[in-house]
Amino acid sequence: MKLLEDRILTDGIVRAGDVLKVDGFLNHMIDVRFVAELGREFHRLFGNCGINKILTIEASGIGVACLTAQFFDCPVVFAKKAKSKNIDADVYTVPVDSFTHGTTYDVMVSKHYLGRGDNVLIIDDFLAKGNALLGLVKLVRESGASLAGAGIVIEKAYMDGGKRIREQGVRVESLARIASMSVENGIVFCKD
Amino acid sequence: MKLLEDRILTDGIVRAGDVLKVDGFLNHMIDVRFVAELGREFHRLFGNCGINKILTIEASGIGVACLTAQFFDCPVVFAKKAKSKNIDADVYTVPVDSFTHGTTYDVMVSKHYLGRGDNVLIIDDFLAKGNALLGLVKLVRESGASLAGAGIVIEKAYMDGGKRIREQGVRVESLARIASMSVENGIVFCKD
Repeated sequence: MKLLEDRILTDGIVRAGDVLKVDGFLNHMIDVRFVAELGREFHRLFGNCGINKILTIEASGIGVACLTAQFFDCPVVFAKKAKSKNIDADVYTVPVDSFTHGTTYDVMVSKHYLGRGDNVLIIDDFLAKGNALLGLVKLVRESGASLAGAGIVIEKAYMDGGKRIREQGVRVESLARIASMSVENGIVFCKD
Repeated sequence: MKLLEDRILTDGIVRAGDVLKVDGFLNHMIDVRFVAELGREFHRLFGNCGINKILTIEASGIGVACLTAQFFDCPVVFAKKAKSKNIDADVYTVPVDSFTHGTTYDVMVSKHYLGRGDNVLIIDDFLAKGNALLGLVKLVRESGASLAGAGIVIEKAYMDGGKRIREQGVRVESLARIASMSVENGIVFCKD
């Protein structure tokens, strides 16, 4: 999606340690009008799949998921990362390794909000090693819901996350796919 | 706001320990169409204040903030709760005690995304003791931005958070104000 690639080139900052900061429009400040355009594109890609629920993971997936859900006219369920006393005991849980934080955490979704009869689109901001996305895929399967696919804003296509998920038969659509990235040479997008 | 009070009475669950679960439409599953109506109401209340930025705190504030921001046609900045290697070193930080989790955490906003020239509306899902909101107010003041007010979805008006914040001269508008709440007697809203 050229609009997104242009924005990443303009506002994205590459840092040592394979970090792409897009805090100016996606991960800390959310350019709501712009992100709604990403939602419109996800709807163009998945709008004919009969999706009735969007699943994401807190925190930075929530904004894009909500703005996308408006086009599908469906609710968003956001998986939670840690046990709070407010969450229901009746949950699906999977462990996930975090690339960003260098830790392992549990991801959980209440059984009340995901289950048989749901047809789910997963939405997330980044796909790198794919651990978070794989966790969400497992949650959907455990719940008995159908999985229509995953819509990702930015995929680091030089990492193996996308391959791992697609090999499981999951349709993954990434709006920007990064072929390579470095502080010295900047960002190169995939041609396909 | 009657629409919200009705929804809380229908879908909210009161638990021991002063917990109001609204996971069915706000805090875990987000009823996007409904929450957009809350955003429309915030815009009715604050639409003439010249707001150019909405500030919230991860995670459960992000959805309502994004859906509200569409009516203001402005970006959302969400304060972050913990230091990740992706966040800029150049941040405003305040410590906040968490009622929900029984811990203290740091809340931070990058200096790039909040500062003089901004006129800020804070949006959050709950106001109880007011610690998180007080932290956001401090962040806005530290940044030199103007604070137009705070829009809260649900205020536990029997707790002192709202009083603490309003005594600081902050305009707080809560769409539902709970006068009392218990497992035995259910939820009673303020009349005013």
